[in-house]
Amino acid sequence: MTSVERQMQELSRGTVDLVVKEELLEKLKVSEKEGRPLRIKAGFDPTAPDLHLGHVVLLQKMRQFQDLGHQVIFLIGDYTGMIGDPTGKSATRKALSKEEVAENAKTYKTQVFKVLDPEKTEIRFNSEWMGAMTADDLIRLAAQYNVARMMERDDFRTRFRENQSISIHEFLYPLVQAYDSVALKADVELGGHDQIFNLLVGRTIQKAYGQTPQVVMTVPLLEGLDGVHKMSKSLNNYIGVDEKASDIFGKTMSLSDEMMWKYYTLLSRKSLEEIKALQDEVEQGTNPMEAKLALAREFVARFAGEDQVADAEAVFRKPNLDAKETEITLDEDSILLLKLLVDLGFTQSNGEGKRLMKQNGVKVDDKAVTDITCKLDKGFAGVVSVGKRKVAKVLLK
Amino acid sequence: MTSVERQMQELSRGTVDLVVKEELLEKLKVSEKEGRPLRIKAGFDPTAPDLHLGHVVLLQKMRQFQDLGHQVIFLIGDYTGMIGDPTGKSATRKALSKEEVAENAKTYKTQVFKVLDPEKTEIRFNSEWMGAMTADDLIRLAAQYNVARMMERDDFRTRFRENQSISIHEFLYPLVQAYDSVALKADVELGGHDQIFNLLVGRTIQKAYGQTPQVVMTVPLLEGLDGVHKMSKSLNNYIGVDEKASDIFGKTMSLSDEMMWKYYTLLSRKSLEEIKALQDEVEQGTNPMEAKLALAREFVARFAGEDQVADAEAVFRKPNLDAKETEITLDEDSILLLKLLVDLGFTQSNGEGKRLMKQNGVKVDDKAVTDITCKLDKGFAGVVSVGKRKVAKVLLK
Repeated sequence: MTSVERQMQELSRGTVDLVVKEELLEKLKVSEKEGRPLRIKAGFDPTAPDLHLGHVVLLQKMRQFQDLGHQVIFLIGDYTGMIGDPTGKSATRKALSKEEVAENAKTYKTQVFKVLDPEKTEIRFNSEWMGAMTADDLIRLAAQYNVARMMERDDFRTRFRENQSISIHEFLYPLVQAYDSVALKADVELGGHDQIFNLLVGRTIQKAYGQTPQVVMTVPLLEGLDGVHKMSKSLNNYIGVDEKASDIFGKTMSLSDEMMWKYYTLLSRKSLEEIKALQDEVEQGTNPMEAKLALAREFVARFAGEDQVADAEAVFRKPNLDAKETEITLDEDSILLLKLLVDLGFTQSNGEGKRLMKQNGVKVDDKAVTDITCKLDKGFAGVVSVGKRKVAKVLLK
Repeated sequence: MTSVERQMQELSRGTVDLVVKEELLEKLKVSEKEGRPLRIKAGFDPTAPDLHLGHVVLLQKMRQFQDLGHQVIFLIGDYTGMIGDPTGKSATRKALSKEEVAENAKTYKTQVFKVLDPEKTEIRFNSEWMGAMTADDLIRLAAQYNVARMMERDDFRTRFRENQSISIHEFLYPLVQAYDSVALKADVELGGHDQIFNLLVGRTIQKAYGQTPQVVMTVPLLEGLDGVHKMSKSLNNYIGVDEKASDIFGKTMSLSDEMMWKYYTLLSRKSLEEIKALQDEVEQGTNPMEAKLALAREFVARFAGEDQVADAEAVFRKPNLDAKETEITLDEDSILLLKLLVDLGFTQSNGEGKRLMKQNGVKVDDKAVTDITCKLDKGFAGVVSVGKRKVAKVLLK
C-alpha cells in the first residue's frame, strides 16, 4: 500500500458520505508531492458548547487528518449567531454578543483540544469575512445557486409541501456556510451526515468563485448508551467530554458489545488493524469485557487525563458503597420494584427494568431479583442497585 | 363632492389595481387636514431611457398626484443596475457604471419633465441606501418574507413548475424594491400592472419595519398604434416622447377611434368631464377626427412644444411628397404588391396589407389598389403609399 492509499483507508473509516473519492485521492497525491497540507474545514455552532462523544465522532475525524499531517480549521459560525433569529419568532435563538461568542470559544478550546492537536488547528470565526460583506456581495453570492436545488434540501421540501413557512433568509444561510469554504480555501469539509446538503452547496459555490470544489465527508450520528437513540443530553444517554473520570469509565462499560465496536471505529485512536486484532481475540474466546475495559481506559485518559484511569477503574470494579440515601414517601402500602427503579432514575421504563431483571442485573440488598412482580413494602430500608454503578440506599416511608 | 372625493375620482381614473381604496381615502384626508403632501413613489430602470407613451401612462398618473399637491419621488433603481447580471448568463444585462447611471438620469430628466412638474419631483437613486447596506441587514430584510409567498409571483410559479432555473438572488430583488419604500417612507407606490406583486411586497416590508403600509396603484399596459400589442419599440407601434412633432401628430391620427378614447383616459391632461363632453359631441354627430386632432395637438404641444403644433398639423394635412426613393432588386420578374409593402416596412404582414387594401388604404401612383393579387413588374418606377404617412418612390430592378 502506498502512503496515499493508507491515508485513504484511515480517512474513509466510519464515514457515511465521501464526495468525491477520486478527488480526495488526487488532492492527497498533490499534497504529498508538493508537501502542502490539505485544509480541512469543519463548522461549529457559536452557542455554549458542552461536548459529548456524539461531537467527538467529528473531532476524531479531524484528528485523523491532523495525524496524517493536514491542517484543520475549526470554524465557529459566529456571524449567523450574532444575527440571531431575525424573524423575532424564536425567543431562544436570541442574538449573541461578541463577548458571549468569545466566552463560548474559550470553552470550546478547553474541550476540543482533548481531541484535536492544537498545533495543527486554526480556530476561525466567519464574522471575519462575513462581517465585511456588503448587501451586493451577498446578492452576487445568491445568484450562484438556484431555488429548485435549494428546495431539494429535505427539511425545506417537507416544510414547503406541508405549507409551513420558510423565511427567505433561510435560503441564504447555506450560501453563507458555502462561502466560508471559499474564504478559507477549504480542500475538504467535514460534517455530520445531517449536514450533507449544506456541505455540497459549498462545492457549487467554490466552483462559482473559481476554486477547485472541496471534498465533502460526513460522519454518522452516534447512537447513545441505549444503542437506539442519537446521543444527546436531553435523552441522558451520553458521555460528556467534561464528565468525571469514574462516570466516563462506568458509562463506557455499560455499552452493549455491538455498540462498543461501533464506538471503537468512530471514536478510538486505535488503528483499524489494532481493532481488528481485538475482535479476533474475542472471536477466539477472550471475554469482550477486556476490549470494553481498554476502550473505557482510552476515553478516561483522553477526556479526564491519563492520571485518572487507575482510580476510575477501581471505582468501577468496587461499587461505591457510599451510595446516596433516598427517602421515598409512598401513597400506597407498597411499591412495585420496577416502578421504584424508574423513580430512582435507574431505568427509563418498566420494559428496561424487566430486561435488566431477567439478566440478573437488579439487586435488592445485593441479591438478584428476577420476579418482575416483586414489591417492596412501606418501612423497607435497604440497598437497591442496577449493575455496579447505580446504587441507592432506600428508605420507604 | 368634497375635495377628497374629487381627488379619489381623478386618481383612480384608468387604474387597474388600487390596494386599499379605503386606505388611500384615509391618507388623502389626513394629508388635507395636516397640509402634508403624500409621498408618491414610482420606480424606474436605470438603463438608457427612450420613453414612449407606454411609459407616459405612469408618468401621467404621477402628474395627477402632483396637480393635486402631492410630492412625487422618481426613483431610479441604479443599485441593481450596477450589479448587472451576477449569474453572468446575460451579456446584455451588463453592470452599469456610476457615470452611465448619471448619464441616463440626465436623459430621463429631459424626457420626464415633459410630463412631470419639476417643482414637485424628487429624483432619487436607491444606491443611496442600498449601497450602505451590509449583508446582515439584507439577511434581516430577507427574514421578513417567506418562500411560499414569493413563489406566488406569476413568473416564479411558472418557471418553478416548468423546471426553469430561478436564481436565489431573484428572490432578493423584490425585497430590495420593497425596502426602497421603507427608505423613502412612501405613502403610495405606483407602477405598471405587471408590477403588482412587487408593489404589494412593499406593503409587507413596510409593516415589518414599523411603517404604515403604502397604498398600491397600478396602471394598465398601453396597447400600441395597432390597438392589439403592448406599445414597444421592437414592435414599431409606439409614439416616442422625443419623436419629431410631425411623427407624433401623424401617428396619433393613425389611431382607431376606440384606441383614441383609451389614450384620452390614460394620457390626456383633459379632465374626465372634458373628455365626456367630447364623447357626447361625437355621439351627436361630430366627426371623431376632430377629437383625434385635438389629442394629436395636445401630444405635440407636450412632447415637442406648443410652437410645433401648427407645422406638424400642416404636414399631416398635406402628405409629404419628398418621399424616400427606394431601389429594389427582384429575383423574380415581378413582386406581389402585398409582399412589397412588407419589404418597404409599411406593413407587418400580408394580412395587414390585405386589410388596408380593402379599406382603400394602399395606393400605387395615387390610385387605390384593392386587388390583393396585384403584382408590380421589374422596371416599375412609381409611388407606393399606405395612408398619408407611408410613401415611397420605388424602382424595381
